[in-house]
Amino acid sequence: MTHTYLDLMRQVDSAKNLEGVYEFRSHDGNKIGKILPFVVAQLKRSAAFEIEEEWKTVRITLESAQERSAALKALCADWRQDKVFRVLEGWRNELYPVYSPSKTIYFVIERSAACLFGLVTYGSHITGYVPAQRPEDFLLWVPRRSYSKPTWPGKLDNTVAGGLGFPAGPWETAIKECQEEAGLPAEYVQPRLKTVGVLTYEFQLEHTVEEETGVYQPEVEYIYDLEMDKDTQPHPEDGEVHEFSLMTTQQVHERLVNGEFKYNCALVMIDFFIRHGIVTPENEQDYIEIVGHCHRKLDYPLR
Amino acid sequence: MTHTYLDLMRQVDSAKNLEGVYEFRSHDGNKIGKILPFVVAQLKRSAAFEIEEEWKTVRITLESAQERSAALKALCADWRQDKVFRVLEGWRNELYPVYSPSKTIYFVIERSAACLFGLVTYGSHITGYVPAQRPEDFLLWVPRRSYSKPTWPGKLDNTVAGGLGFPAGPWETAIKECQEEAGLPAEYVQPRLKTVGVLTYEFQLEHTVEEETGVYQPEVEYIYDLEMDKDTQPHPEDGEVHEFSLMTTQQVHERLVNGEFKYNCALVMIDFFIRHGIVTPENEQDYIEIVGHCHRKLDYPLR
Repeated sequence: MTHTYLDLMRQVDSAKNLEGVYEFRSHDGNKIGKILPFVVAQLKRSAAFEIEEEWKTVRITLESAQERSAALKALCADWRQDKVFRVLEGWRNELYPVYSPSKTIYFVIERSAACLFGLVTYGSHITGYVPAQRPEDFLLWVPRRSYSKPTWPGKLDNTVAGGLGFPAGPWETAIKECQEEAGLPAEYVQPRLKTVGVLTYEFQLEHTVEEETGVYQPEVEYIYDLEMDKDTQPHPEDGEVHEFSLMTTQQVHERLVNGEFKYNCALVMIDFFIRHGIVTPENEQDYIEIVGHCHRKLDYPLR
Repeated sequence: MTHTYLDLMRQVDSAKNLEGVYEFRSHDGNKIGKILPFVVAQLKRSAAFEIEEEWKTVRITLESAQERSAALKALCADWRQDKVFRVLEGWRNELYPVYSPSKTIYFVIERSAACLFGLVTYGSHITGYVPAQRPEDFLLWVPRRSYSKPTWPGKLDNTVAGGLGFPAGPWETAIKECQEEAGLPAEYVQPRLKTVGVLTYEFQLEHTVEEETGVYQPEVEYIYDLEMDKDTQPHPEDGEVHEFSLMTTQQVHERLVNGEFKYNCALVMIDFFIRHGIVTPENEQDYIEIVGHCHRKLDYPLR
C-alpha cells in the first residue's frame, strides 16, 4: 500500500485519542507533559506526586530541580528493577532535560522514561546530500537502521540523528552524532553544516491509552543540511546503521510512499523536499497541511 | 526603541482579543472567517446572511459559489458607495478566493473587503539575495515602500511580494510580481526562483474589536528565495517602491530591530535568517517560539 505525504505526516504528528489522559503539571502549575492512566497507577510509589482524580491532573510537588530529579531517578530505578514498563528495558543512562518557562532546567530524567510522562524530548536531525544544479537532481545519503535495533529495525533514517542528552546543545549533538553514527569527523562537518530550522510534532503510536503502545510523545527536532562532496562517504561507526545508500530524490520519494522510513524521519525528509522546492504548492495539493504537521504548537515550556 | 525578533513576531502573529467576534460559517457549517461586531451590524442589508446572536455566528445561506459571490459583490458595492468602511477606499478590482474543504472555490470576494470577514488571504513573498560562502555574508535586496502608498508608507518590504488574485497560483504570482514590482523579467527569474515553504499567521493590528483598526486577518504567505548575481539590479517599475537597496544581513538585522520593516515582511525576513542558519538555536533564545509564530495553525479550509 502506498502512502501520500499527508498520510506520512499524520502517522508521526498523530496524537489523537488522549481521553482519560492526565495532565502533568509542575509544582507551580505549568503543563509539562501528559501521563497515561496505566502510568498514573504506578506513581503512588512516590511521595513526590499529587494525583487529582477529578481534574485528571498529576502535580510534582518538590520545589527544587535537584529534589525533583532525585525523586524521578529513584522512582524510575524502582520501576526498572521491578520490570514495570517494557520501555525501561531500553535504559540509556542518559539524562533528558525538562524546562521551566524561564528556559532553566526544571528537572532531568532518564531518557527511556521520558515517554512515560509525555515529556517534550529534543533531537538533532541531519540530511547529508550531494548538491546539483536542480534540487530534483540532489543525491541523499540514506541509512538503513540495524536489523538488531530494538526500535524500528531495518527502517530508513535521516543521514544522522540523535537525541539531545543533558547538557549538550543541538549543534554540539549534530557534530557528535555525525562522528559516532556516520564516521564523519568534526573537521569535515563543522564548515559544511547549516542550521535550517526546527520541527515540532506530537506522536502517539496507537490511538489507545491503555498500554505502552499508546504512549504520547511531543518532540522537537532541530534540523540541519549537510552539503557533501561526491567522494566523502558516511559509514556505519557504532553499529546503529546497517548500511548507507546514496539515493536520488526519486528513490527517496518511492521509499517514503512505500512506508520504508521511520515515521519521524519521513517528516524530516519531506520538510527537506519542501525547503528545496522539490515539493511545491503546484505539485502537492496538501502543501499547507503538510507544513502545518511539521510545526505543531507544543503547549509546554520549551528550551 | 529596539525590538527582539520575538517582539516582531508577536506584532504580526498578533490576533489576541477576539471576544465578541462572530464566527463566519459556510452554509454547511465550516468555519471560514471571523466578523467583528461593527461589520455584523452592516450585514442586515443582505438577505444572504443569517445572524445567530446567541452563538455569535454568521452563516452565509446561499448554496452555490456563484450565488454567494454575487451576493457579496452586491453588498460590498453598496458599502463602498455609501462609504461604510474606510478599507473599501482601497478597492482593487481584484478577486480573492475562499475555499471549501475539498479545495474548490467556495466564493470569490473583492480583495479590499476580505479583511471585513476575517477571510484567509494568500500571498507570494520573494527574497532576492546575492549568495556568498557564508550566509552571514549574503547581500539582500530590500525595497522601501513608496511614501505615497495608503498602507505602510515608507516601510521596508521583502524584495517582491504580492497577493494571490483569483485564479493565479503562487508561482505564477511570484513571477508576475517580480516583473511588475522590481523589473525582473520572467526569463531571469524562472530558472533562479526556488519555492522554500509557506508561512501562516493571524494578524490583528490593534487589540480592539470596536473599529476597523481591530480587523482580524489570517494569512498564508508562500515563500521563495531568488538567488541573484551581483550585476542584476531590481528597480521600481510600478510606483509601489520608492527605492531598492542592497543590504548586508547585519544592516537588515538593524532595520528589523529598529522596527523599519512592514510587520509581515519582518516575519518573512526572520524566516529567511532561520532557513539560512543566520539565526540559530545557539544565538536566539526564543528560536522555537519564533518558528512557531511563522506557522500558526489556521482553523479554516485552505487551498
